[in-house]
Amino acid sequence: MQVHFLGTGAGLPSKKRNVTSIILDLLQERNELWMFDCGEATQHQILHTSIKPRKIDKIFITHLHGDHIFGLPGLLSSRSFQGGENPVTIYGPKGIKQFIETTLSVSQSKLSYPINVEEIDEGIIFQDEQFSVSAKKLEHGIESFGFRIDEQDSPGPLLVEKLKEEGIAPGPIYQQFKTNDTVELPDGRTVLSKDFIGEAKKGKSIAIFGDTRYIEEHITFCHQVNLLVHEATFNQEQAELAHDYFHSTTTQAATIAKRANVKQLILTHISSRFQLEEVDQLLLEAKEVFPNTQIAIDFDSYPIK
Amino acid sequence: MQVHFLGTGAGLPSKKRNVTSIILDLLQERNELWMFDCGEATQHQILHTSIKPRKIDKIFITHLHGDHIFGLPGLLSSRSFQGGENPVTIYGPKGIKQFIETTLSVSQSKLSYPINVEEIDEGIIFQDEQFSVSAKKLEHGIESFGFRIDEQDSPGPLLVEKLKEEGIAPGPIYQQFKTNDTVELPDGRTVLSKDFIGEAKKGKSIAIFGDTRYIEEHITFCHQVNLLVHEATFNQEQAELAHDYFHSTTTQAATIAKRANVKQLILTHISSRFQLEEVDQLLLEAKEVFPNTQIAIDFDSYPIK
Repeated sequence: MQVHFLGTGAGLPSKKRNVTSIILDLLQERNELWMFDCGEATQHQILHTSIKPRKIDKIFITHLHGDHIFGLPGLLSSRSFQGGENPVTIYGPKGIKQFIETTLSVSQSKLSYPINVEEIDEGIIFQDEQFSVSAKKLEHGIESFGFRIDEQDSPGPLLVEKLKEEGIAPGPIYQQFKTNDTVELPDGRTVLSKDFIGEAKKGKSIAIFGDTRYIEEHITFCHQVNLLVHEATFNQEQAELAHDYFHSTTTQAATIAKRANVKQLILTHISSRFQLEEVDQLLLEAKEVFPNTQIAIDFDSYPIK
Repeated sequence: MQVHFLGTGAGLPSKKRNVTSIILDLLQERNELWMFDCGEATQHQILHTSIKPRKIDKIFITHLHGDHIFGLPGLLSSRSFQGGENPVTIYGPKGIKQFIETTLSVSQSKLSYPINVEEIDEGIIFQDEQFSVSAKKLEHGIESFGFRIDEQDSPGPLLVEKLKEEGIAPGPIYQQFKTNDTVELPDGRTVLSKDFIGEAKKGKSIAIFGDTRYIEEHITFCHQVNLLVHEATFNQEQAELAHDYFHSTTTQAATIAKRANVKQLILTHISSRFQLEEVDQLLLEAKEVFPNTQIAIDFDSYPIK
C-alpha cells in the first residue's frame, strides 16, 4: 500500500506543481488503484509514471472546485481510448454527476466501460471484506469531504510449529483452525482454535482531506491513522487569511496530526506563491508541532507504514 | 501576425504532443491573441511560453470533441485568477454554451470578466474594420468547423514626395487625400486623391480547419490564403481509415492546399502512433503534392508571410 502524489499545488497549475490528484496504490492488496481528486492534466502527469489508468477503478472527489475536477473528463475518455473495460465508480459531492454527464455528452465521449457516479453524504460510502471508506464534511465554503480508508484487520497466521508439537499433522484439519472456534482432533481431544492462531495483523488506515479550515472535530475523524494527507495552503502567520479563504496553515494541519495521534503527516496543496526556500520554512513550522511530517512534491511516492 | 502551436497531437495527449490548441497572435495588429481550440492542459502549455492569458479575447472552437475543449474551463478560471478583466467571446458549435455554463457553475468558478458564448453557424461570425472571420461546416461525424480569418486591405500610403512636387506643402490638407475622393488645392485646382495614394496593402488571410474528411468544396473556402492549418491524422496509405474515422491524410491536406493555391500549409493533429522518423515520412508525402508544407510541433511559431 502506497500513496503517489500526481499534483501537489493549490488553485493554479505551475511549472513545478500540478493541481491536485493523489493515487492510493492498492495493487498488492487488490490489484487496484484508487484516485483522490483529478485536477486538469492529471492524465498528463500519469504519462510520466508507471500508473495504468485501466487499473483505476474508484475515484473519490473531495470537492468540486476546478483544480480538483477539471481533469476528470479527459482521464475518463483516455482510459477508454486505452482500452479500459472494467467499471469505474466515482464518489463525490452533489453536482459531480451533472459535471460528468454534461462533459461526456457534449463531447460525445462514448466510454468503453460502465461508470457509476455516487453523490455522497457523510458516513461509510464503501465497504467490503478488505476495506471501508468513510466520508466526513469539512469546512470549505463549498461542500468538501475528507476520506478515511480503513483496511480490515487480517487474522493471525496458523502456528504450524505449535500444532506439530501437539502432534497435529498437516492436512485438511488445519483449515478447521481458521474457520471453527473449536477443533476435534483424531485422538478425541477438543482444542480451542485461538490457541493455535498468531496475533491478528492490524489493518492500515489513511485519511485524505479535501480543502478545509481547521476544525477541532476533524481530529476524531482521522484518529490514529497511519497516514494523514492534509492541505497546507498558508504558512503559520497567515491563519487569518486561511480562515477567510477556508484553508489551513501548516501549523493547523500539524496540530490535527498531533492531536489525532497519527503516525505520519504529508502536507500538500502548496501555493505557488511559496518559493523553494519558503517551502523549507513551511516544513519546519509543521515539524515543530508534529515531527513526522513531509511536504509532498509532484511524483513523490510514500509507502504506508 | 503569427501562429503559435500549443498542442499538435490527435485524440490523446502524449509526452511529445499535447492535444489541440493554436494561438493566432495579433498583438502587433490589435494587441490581442485569438485562440483556436483548447484541449486539456492548454493552460499548462502556456506556462512554458510568453503568452499572457489576459490578452486572449476570442476563442474559436472547431468542434466539441474532448481533445479540443477539455482545457477551456481551466483556462477561463485561471485567466480570472490571474486578474484578467477584459471580456472574452467564445465562438463554437451548439453545445459549447452548455459545456461552459455547467463546468463553471458546478465548480463555482466566478470569473473576474464577462464572457459571451456564441453558438455559430456557417457564414461570417465576426467582422470589424480590421478583420473578418467566417466559419464553414466540415465533415467529421460531429459538427466541425473551419475558420477563415481575413485581414482587410490597408489603404496605400500618401505619396508625400509627389505631393511636394506638385507644390502641395504638408499640413491639414494631407488628411483630405485620405478621406475625400477629390481635394481642392489652395491655388484653386481640384485633384484626384487616388493620384497621390500608393498601392493598397493586401490583408493577410489564414484558414484553420477542425478535424475533417477530405471534401472538395473546402478548396473554395481556403482559396489563396497565406496560411492553411490542416489536420493530418493519417498517412497517405490510410485513406480508407481516414474516411471511416472522419479524418484526413497528409496527401489529402496537401491536395486541398495545392488546389486552393494557398501560400503555405502547416499540418497538425498528428497521431502519437507515428514515431519520429515516420513523421518525417508524413512530411515527404505532403511535400510531394504541396512543397511549402511544414508539420507543426508543440511550441512552434510561424510568422504569416
